[in-house]
Amino acid sequence: MAAFAFDIAARDGAARTGVLRTLRGDIATPAFMPVGTAGTVKTLMMDQVKTTGADIILGNTFHLMLRPGAERVKALGGLHKFSGWSGPMLTDSGGFQVMSLAKISKVTEEAAVFASPIDGSRHVLTPERSIDIQANLLGADIVMQLDECVAWPASDQRAAEALRLSARWGARCKTAFGTRDRQSLFGIQQGSTVEALRRESSDRLLDIGFDGYAIGGLAVGEGHAAMCETLDYAPGLLPADRPRYLMGVGKPRDIVEAVARGVDMFDCVLPTRSGRHGQAWTWAGPINLKTARFADDENPLDETIDCPASRDYSRAYLHHLVKSREILAQVLLSWHNLAFFQVLMAGLRAAIREQRLAAFRADCAAGRRPRL
Amino acid sequence: MAAFAFDIAARDGAARTGVLRTLRGDIATPAFMPVGTAGTVKTLMMDQVKTTGADIILGNTFHLMLRPGAERVKALGGLHKFSGWSGPMLTDSGGFQVMSLAKISKVTEEAAVFASPIDGSRHVLTPERSIDIQANLLGADIVMQLDECVAWPASDQRAAEALRLSARWGARCKTAFGTRDRQSLFGIQQGSTVEALRRESSDRLLDIGFDGYAIGGLAVGEGHAAMCETLDYAPGLLPADRPRYLMGVGKPRDIVEAVARGVDMFDCVLPTRSGRHGQAWTWAGPINLKTARFADDENPLDETIDCPASRDYSRAYLHHLVKSREILAQVLLSWHNLAFFQVLMAGLRAAIREQRLAAFRADCAAGRRPRL
Repeated sequence: MAAFAFDIAARDGAARTGVLRTLRGDIATPAFMPVGTAGTVKTLMMDQVKTTGADIILGNTFHLMLRPGAERVKALGGLHKFSGWSGPMLTDSGGFQVMSLAKISKVTEEAAVFASPIDGSRHVLTPERSIDIQANLLGADIVMQLDECVAWPASDQRAAEALRLSARWGARCKTAFGTRDRQSLFGIQQGSTVEALRRESSDRLLDIGFDGYAIGGLAVGEGHAAMCETLDYAPGLLPADRPRYLMGVGKPRDIVEAVARGVDMFDCVLPTRSGRHGQAWTWAGPINLKTARFADDENPLDETIDCPASRDYSRAYLHHLVKSREILAQVLLSWHNLAFFQVLMAGLRAAIREQRLAAFRADCAAGRRPRL
Repeated sequence: MAAFAFDIAARDGAARTGVLRTLRGDIATPAFMPVGTAGTVKTLMMDQVKTTGADIILGNTFHLMLRPGAERVKALGGLHKFSGWSGPMLTDSGGFQVMSLAKISKVTEEAAVFASPIDGSRHVLTPERSIDIQANLLGADIVMQLDECVAWPASDQRAAEALRLSARWGARCKTAFGTRDRQSLFGIQQGSTVEALRRESSDRLLDIGFDGYAIGGLAVGEGHAAMCETLDYAPGLLPADRPRYLMGVGKPRDIVEAVARGVDMFDCVLPTRSGRHGQAWTWAGPINLKTARFADDENPLDETIDCPASRDYSRAYLHHLVKSREILAQVLLSWHNLAFFQVLMAGLRAAIREQRLAAFRADCAAGRRPRL
């Protein structure tokens, strides 16, 4: 495990703040990872993403294996060189997208089999192929095991089958990954919203042993309350000295509540997707720049955020760009939202360090700007 | 004319290079003006536009008067503050777009009357209203007279009527503009591709007297050869000591040939429009990044151009972005194209200064990189 050190510097209740050390750079935790689906954090240059304070981004195996192709990315020098992101990168396994994006897909003991939504071609994603793509071809710093994520709601039996298959796939991923000194492998806890199943999943993962552990199968429709209830116990089932990554989450309030329950890492398309749809995140919640009330508003989105998109453009101008369907609207709102999420994470880290997370949570819940 | 000095530093044949001095900054000529249609040079931030070397950008009266509205721009501090461009800005009069973009339009002695393509509302654009919008509400540094631009081909009679109406409108614009010490007014020569009509138009404009003169009514379908033939005489009909602006031009070869014939200023949507459609300009002509031959091409678009979009991304990556319909493709290709056009202009200025424009033209015509 030389590739990977996780130093927890401070705790406040179940929450922790620290540093995840990789050979491509340090990641301050709790960390939010912008999603660079197809080798691009949508609408933005990597320099812009970096200026928001992001230490690590996420790449999607499913998208990249289909286009431009994992072997092509490898021939072009790997995903870091291809995309222009030189810091740490985590790739997902492709499993979640097989189930959510492929029109035709089937899960067998051996693999996830699916038809490409681009050209209909048939693909077989085994645990071994997922590791080969992530670790050898794309060159991710943090590699995720292939898992099966069930839809919500799922019967206990269905959720149990999926967590057991995920554990068997996790063991195969561990074998395929082997021992590496520059890359790390994370296992993924499943088990829907059932404590006994989350416990079984964790036990199975711990038997295998990973560098870090993700909590999968949340943010799939169960809602904020059910997610929080699950997070009341799910992180605690995972090793305290290893990073915990809540996949696909989420809204600021989801992140704050998950951090308070001991989660260290997050990823979500929300900031960039919201931005492309005219939404800007603020401490009071998202605002839609298309609405007429911003037509004459000379204020910037948030002058306290050190990002040009947050600070240097009036809401009136952004309103005009959104109404005119100008691409610059999507660029600026994506950039602001990513900056906002990073300010949130930095605020959470400071609050934990200074033992004032409770006040931070209360401010966020009330739609007030917390002390940052 | 205190707002405006034009110093010609060197000549090579009919070509000139110099500096147009405005109160918001100097403009090196020959100059290419990126088009900021609706208060944005499409896909880019003004900082990015500035880094390409652009000294001045163009704003469109037609678009801005309809959305967000000229009075609103004024209330928000004027177009410079609204858009974030602090350098010199030229606005067109709106006349050309009334004829090219409005589905319903009519030209009378009094005004151009049209229905908004956004909401069908009726607008009356008089010469006086155009000046009020440009000079008082948007706050342009260089203001264009309202003119009537006829389609091509046009009968001599139709072209003569249009140039005479344009001259009468020019006189009304001059009166409405009055005397200003921070802003300049340009007249527009019309007359299709007929020398006698271009001469008549110029004579009428000279009787009125403007700070600079545009050549309108070209790049409307007549083609490169007919444009060049017209430019063999049209610039020479205008005062040698005043800037000459060829409106809506054009491709690099159009620009090079026009500069050789004595034109000082250009504007065109081509670099940004091409970029949004996957095209990149090179010395050998435009290339379409979508084509499969770039899928494995590790070379940047042009490593000699000091622009991140030209230098820091492989053609393979850009190909991938275009194929994946990623917005970043449009951003990067627009940025590269604007940088390429500015390198072309800087090269033209150096070639004129060093009396080697003939070799520069020959290289461009042959698709070779000229000495820059």
